[in-house]
Amino acid sequence: MYSGEELLRPALMTDLYQLTMAAGYCLSGGNGEAVFELSVRSLPEYRSYLVAAGLEQAVEYILHLRFAPEEIEWLRSLPAFRDTPEVFFRFLADFRFGGDVWAVPEGTPVFGGEPIAEVRAPLAQAQILETFLLSVMHVQTLVASKASRVVDAARGRGVVDFGSRRAHGPEAGILAARAAFIGGCAGTSNLWASRAFGIPAVGTAAHSWTLAFPSEAEAFARYHALFPDSTVVLIDTYDTLQGARNALRLGAGLRGVRIDSGDLRTRSREVRKILDDGGLERTQIVASGDLNEYRIAELLREGAPIDLFGVGTEMVTSRDSPSLGMVYKLVELEENGRTSFRAKFSEGKETCPGRKQIWRFRDEHGCCLQDEIGTPEDCPSAGAAPVLVPIIERGSLTYRFPRLTEVREYARAERDCLPARLRLLEAGPGYPVRWSAKLEDRFGQLRGSCPAPQPRQERETD
Amino acid sequence: MYSGEELLRPALMTDLYQLTMAAGYCLSGGNGEAVFELSVRSLPEYRSYLVAAGLEQAVEYILHLRFAPEEIEWLRSLPAFRDTPEVFFRFLADFRFGGDVWAVPEGTPVFGGEPIAEVRAPLAQAQILETFLLSVMHVQTLVASKASRVVDAARGRGVVDFGSRRAHGPEAGILAARAAFIGGCAGTSNLWASRAFGIPAVGTAAHSWTLAFPSEAEAFARYHALFPDSTVVLIDTYDTLQGARNALRLGAGLRGVRIDSGDLRTRSREVRKILDDGGLERTQIVASGDLNEYRIAELLREGAPIDLFGVGTEMVTSRDSPSLGMVYKLVELEENGRTSFRAKFSEGKETCPGRKQIWRFRDEHGCCLQDEIGTPEDCPSAGAAPVLVPIIERGSLTYRFPRLTEVREYARAERDCLPARLRLLEAGPGYPVRWSAKLEDRFGQLRGSCPAPQPRQERETD
Repeated sequence: MYSGEELLRPALMTDLYQLTMAAGYCLSGGNGEAVFELSVRSLPEYRSYLVAAGLEQAVEYILHLRFAPEEIEWLRSLPAFRDTPEVFFRFLADFRFGGDVWAVPEGTPVFGGEPIAEVRAPLAQAQILETFLLSVMHVQTLVASKASRVVDAARGRGVVDFGSRRAHGPEAGILAARAAFIGGCAGTSNLWASRAFGIPAVGTAAHSWTLAFPSEAEAFARYHALFPDSTVVLIDTYDTLQGARNALRLGAGLRGVRIDSGDLRTRSREVRKILDDGGLERTQIVASGDLNEYRIAELLREGAPIDLFGVGTEMVTSRDSPSLGMVYKLVELEENGRTSFRAKFSEGKETCPGRKQIWRFRDEHGCCLQDEIGTPEDCPSAGAAPVLVPIIERGSLTYRFPRLTEVREYARAERDCLPARLRLLEAGPGYPVRWSAKLEDRFGQLRGSCPAPQPRQERETD
Repeated sequence: MYSGEELLRPALMTDLYQLTMAAGYCLSGGNGEAVFELSVRSLPEYRSYLVAAGLEQAVEYILHLRFAPEEIEWLRSLPAFRDTPEVFFRFLADFRFGGDVWAVPEGTPVFGGEPIAEVRAPLAQAQILETFLLSVMHVQTLVASKASRVVDAARGRGVVDFGSRRAHGPEAGILAARAAFIGGCAGTSNLWASRAFGIPAVGTAAHSWTLAFPSEAEAFARYHALFPDSTVVLIDTYDTLQGARNALRLGAGLRGVRIDSGDLRTRSREVRKILDDGGLERTQIVASGDLNEYRIAELLREGAPIDLFGVGTEMVTSRDSPSLGMVYKLVELEENGRTSFRAKFSEGKETCPGRKQIWRFRDEHGCCLQDEIGTPEDCPSAGAAPVLVPIIERGSLTYRFPRLTEVREYARAERDCLPARLRLLEAGPGYPVRWSAKLEDRFGQLRGSCPAPQPRQERETD
């Protein structure tokens, strides 16, 4: 078992400006200890909570980031670095992350404006990480959040990830499989993700299998002969009901049938009846084909006898909200031995200065009541617990990453602790998140007379 | 220069069922010569044409696909392959693609129902390629198509890709940078993509740079001292107009200022006036921040004096249509020395049997009039030219991939040949694509009395 070490993470997978700025910090004497905060500005339109994911790949990147000699040589050839002094290239050649990282554990529900991760390191070091960190945490948080809704909508029926072919590239399929598992999926069709992350590999057969034999019945029989314990036949290649009758011939050992087209509600009922009448009461019905949380909820509301949902495109692309406003912002900087707060006031994109902690209030049953974003030092009350935990200290990993099955279980338990209204598919009133009085003061002092904008409760709309 | 050889492409980046089916074909004697067709079922809601992209990475995958011993060992450990005879694992160990691939050249406009690529190989070989092929061609076709709209909307002003941080993972950022360049972007912020594909690397500076210094004016001066020829300062960290006045102090050598927030129309005008009044008529204005083709068109309609657009999230996630219904379907199979046509009749997902060619009709100026999807052998008339070309023959590359700048130029020229209505941002009547009489007959014969459904002209809607 490994955690994605073989994933692509060369040092040049970053934006040009991260390196021009890093050069500037190295050369301008402005390379003090900095704190950057990674957060999602506000929840997207169709989400009432997010599920944090991607930390493990982010941490592997941070700990292993090195600039190879040929990468540095190539950088020298760019017009931007034509006259850059040698000290910057030495900085790159010697690069080892030596700072601290705090983060919320994977699987934790998070909300708009909350710090999901915090990097404390010399400015140039912390700056360089931005692009990759955002990229790998953005996609996994995006997909884990979507998957959590899909799995929740299935009310205990299994959901498996079939999305690799339409994820945004091969690596995206792998990252999505991992995130979907965190969000509650039971397995993935992606073999690389299965091997790397220990996610159960699942699969049925494609239409091409049925088309490859003279008859559907023969195609089914051949498959069953080869994989007698795990046969799930796809019955909609020609005619779904005839397909179900052909499946009957395989007998009671048939594990399942899959329906991938047509009106799934009607077809699943008709197929269930054919199977039951034929004595295959234990044969499961798997449904697939452009499924999402809304369609699954509707099918179950209508009583469709579907046992397992194969979900692909809609989940792995988070199709109704295919991006998050995830940002990585400088909030604190040490200069001449003195720490000062930093915030930008860009219209509609203001940031809140200083290191922070999420303080989560729960009732006596553990149910989440509200969050206060405050300073790390000041616990607002005995009822509040900190959510961000130390991950890397002085360049060394001090956090024990749980197994992915543990992350998945934790995410499920935490979802169960959310207010019920957040689990409705239609977005209602959001979860209460406020800034502490101290943070408000800090923002006011930095900006002058302006009142501090609170974390945005409203969702983004297009 | 290389074309992405270092991208991730292990053999296990595929779906489980591709390998169970491949095992079945190897073991069932059903491993005849097959033809699979890759196409997009129908255009998504907000697209009137697609730009084919991703072929080069698909071909590299096909030519280099090998199963490593440790991958095969891991497969043996899966429950599905517990009893699988050795002949299948030998097939994997010896895997070399030995078939043919035809495809439309990258940058070619394509439409719903048209074959974008065709793989002809022994069934098991062709089957295994499905997941990776779809994945790498789907994301690039998706992003190239979106970028083409964005660039077209900019009416000659430059568009650059700033999207790596919110693409669906690090590799997706790279693939998106490549596809966006094919779609017409002038550069990318992604250094890995710049190095691998020869795309110009572009970048400005982030808010953190400004926040890192005691004053904005000092931050600007420091940057300009380091990068005098390429300084583009970000002026909206505190107050955009004051930022513009601070930028003035850098003098006429200032290449550009970037505005990333607020009302870009008003701000760009105010900033233009400050720059012009200060004698910086040649300093460019770069705009960024949740831009897409609609916002760019609106800004230009309103006369916003913006010279360059930095486009990120909306383009690299193809946010309004974040997936395509791209499929890979068996259309022909040789059995006992006799070739027969294959098609599935699944409700709403019927496929059209047999090998095909796109025949494109043009007027005397080269403008595209209509397409006929027909057999490869039968050119419908003297005015029609074939669009699919041979790429791999008997396992060897016979196609010369053009340089990416040539692909970009070709894509631009081909876009100029499309009917003007297809380039409107709002989807109107689509481009006419019909099946040839021969294909219709073939479908009818296979299905019996049913009439052949024509390629879908209508767009998908949610």
